[in-house]
Formats: sequence, C-alpha cells, structure tokens
Amino acid sequence: MDYFEKTLKEREIFSGRIIKVKVADVELSNGGFSQREIVEHPGAVAILAVTDEQKVVLLRQFRKAVEEVLWEIPAGKLEKNEDPLICAKRELQEETGYTAEKWEKLCQFYTSPGFSNEILYLYRAEGLKLGLSNLDQDEFVEVFTLSRKELEELLEQGKIKDAKTLLGLLYFNLKDKTT
Amino acid sequence: MDYFEKTLKEREIFSGRIIKVKVADVELSNGGFSQREIVEHPGAVAILAVTDEQKVVLLRQFRKAVEEVLWEIPAGKLEKNEDPLICAKRELQEETGYTAEKWEKLCQFYTSPGFSNEILYLYRAEGLKLGLSNLDQDEFVEVFTLSRKELEELLEQGKIKDAKTLLGLLYFNLKDKTT
Repeated sequence: MDYFEKTLKEREIFSGRIIKVKVADVELSNGGFSQREIVEHPGAVAILAVTDEQKVVLLRQFRKAVEEVLWEIPAGKLEKNEDPLICAKRELQEETGYTAEKWEKLCQFYTSPGFSNEILYLYRAEGLKLGLSNLDQDEFVEVFTLSRKELEELLEQGKIKDAKTLLGLLYFNLKDKTT
Repeated sequence: MDYFEKTLKEREIFSGRIIKVKVADVELSNGGFSQREIVEHPGAVAILAVTDEQKVVLLRQFRKAVEEVLWEIPAGKLEKNEDPLICAKRELQEETGYTAEKWEKLCQFYTSPGFSNEILYLYRAEGLKLGLSNLDQDEFVEVFTLSRKELEELLEQGKIKDAKTLLGLLYFNLKDKTT
C-alpha cells in the first residue's frame, strides 16, 4: 500500500540556530487533506564509549528543554555535510577528552519521526585514551565512567531518561550477554 | 555541580496542533548567555504488543517529517492530563484493534532532550485479543504481526529506523534472552 502524503503547500515558521520549523499542507492517500508540523534538525551522533575496564563513559548535562540534568552518552550535532563517524570522533574528544582506536556503527534511527526528521547515528568506541576535552562555550558537562553494576542500578532506578542512552546501554548489555 | 540555566526571556514562536516552539534567552552557570530553541510536545506512549504466539505487532506508516514509510510499534500522543497507561490501551485498540489483558511499563524516556521535551512511555502488552480498529481520519497504517526471526531480519537489514521501535525490540530480546 502507498500512504505517501503529497505536499500541496509549505510555509517556514522558524529558522533557528539549530532547528527549522515548517507546516505542510498535505493531500492524503484517500484524497483527504491534513496539516503536518515538521521540525527539521541537522542530525546527530552518539557514542557508547567503553573503556578497557568495561566501563561506559556517561555525561551529566543540563537540558533546558526538559529543565533537568540528564545522564547521557556523549553526543553532538552533525555539521553541514559532515560524515557521521568523523563527527562522532570529534564529539567524543570535545566532550570527554577521549579518543578511541576501534569504532563500530551500532545503528541509526529517527528520534521522533512523528514530527521531526532528526536522525541519530549510534557508534560503539573502544580502545579509549584520555586526552584534553574542548567544549563549546555554552556547553557544561561532567564526565563519568560507570561500571556495569553502576549502570544496572541507574537503569533499575529509572535514572536513565534519554532515548539514545537507553539504546546504547541496551546494546552494551545485549552484546555482552550474547558473546 | 549545578548547570542550571536560568530563563531570562522567552518568546513563543509557534503554537500548532501538536507542537509549540519557543526560544529562551538563558543565563549559563558561568555567567555567560545563550539561546535555547525548544519544541514542546504533549508526550506519547508506545506499546510492545506480544501475541500468544510470541509475535510482535508492528505498523507500517508514512511519516511526513522523514518522507518515508516506517516500521513502528503502535504509539500515539497523550491527550491533555491523560494517564499514559489509559492512553496506551486506547492507542493500541485504535491503531491495531488489539486489546490486552496484561500490561507492564518497560521504561520512560525523552526522545530528544537537546531540543524537545517530548516524553515517551513504553509498555509491554500481552494476552492480546483482536477486535476492531478505529483510526483517526488522517491516519493510515497497515498492521502486521512478526515472528522473532522476521524481526531479527528487519533489524539486521537496518529496516527498523524508529527509536522507540528499536528500544521496544531490544527489550523484547533482552527479556527473552535473560529469562
């Protein structure tokens, strides 16, 4: 079946530093009409960075949209036409100071395709070496490395509230439980 | 450490049918200033619905924001002040026709806290019975039930591109591999 929705008209509502917002008038597959509100985002990367001691690098970071400090794996937005792997290497180093010898792509996904085109590329990084971090001027994060036991506690207590971080940690468990 | 960002001024850019967009001028914890672009969303639920034959209910649905038909677990937006579990029962029935005897909350998470406050409540539903579905007027979906083998193939081929669906399927695997 083909559920494609044809754009009849589109107007740009907002063009910000990070997101753009559009409203599209669409024709539905049954001939009806509707409106779709769309948030355009440049896309992002996230990194499940695992130390030689099998600890995972997590950040504590304030997120204005939810007015909360969240536990998150390192992540960052793609620059224009940037290769996701190059972005992931850059962001890991900038946010945490770590560089990694071994990189593996785990998956890619849309974070919330009902209203946003944000795509996220998730990598696993191993063979970590700690150097200097280099944060953006308006970025403040604390860096931690947590053991499997500590991560399980955070998960059980519902303290991991970020989708990409949950996904990364589930991949970490999965991989290690099945190999 | 306290990384709270104080809102100095906030302006509403857009108030749509589903999302609101705001820009906040914030004071950073180091005394500097920045702007945050924020998308407000009513929140949503998603359901990992597992049949007695251990098949998972998936939908095929066109998503205008990404101009693609995606595989997704059943999901839907919260109505104002709606209890997430009641919403999950309603959405499962409306989208797929299924009702379920047994409900378990798996987790809740922010889909993309860097710019949006959307929160998603993920449930597992079992003891399914098929009745009539009842879709919104501008909603068109195809309903499938897929075996573990079929799901693994979709995952391996990178055909599951939606964050909540990946999470649901990882929980499905995890649970069944560890029990």
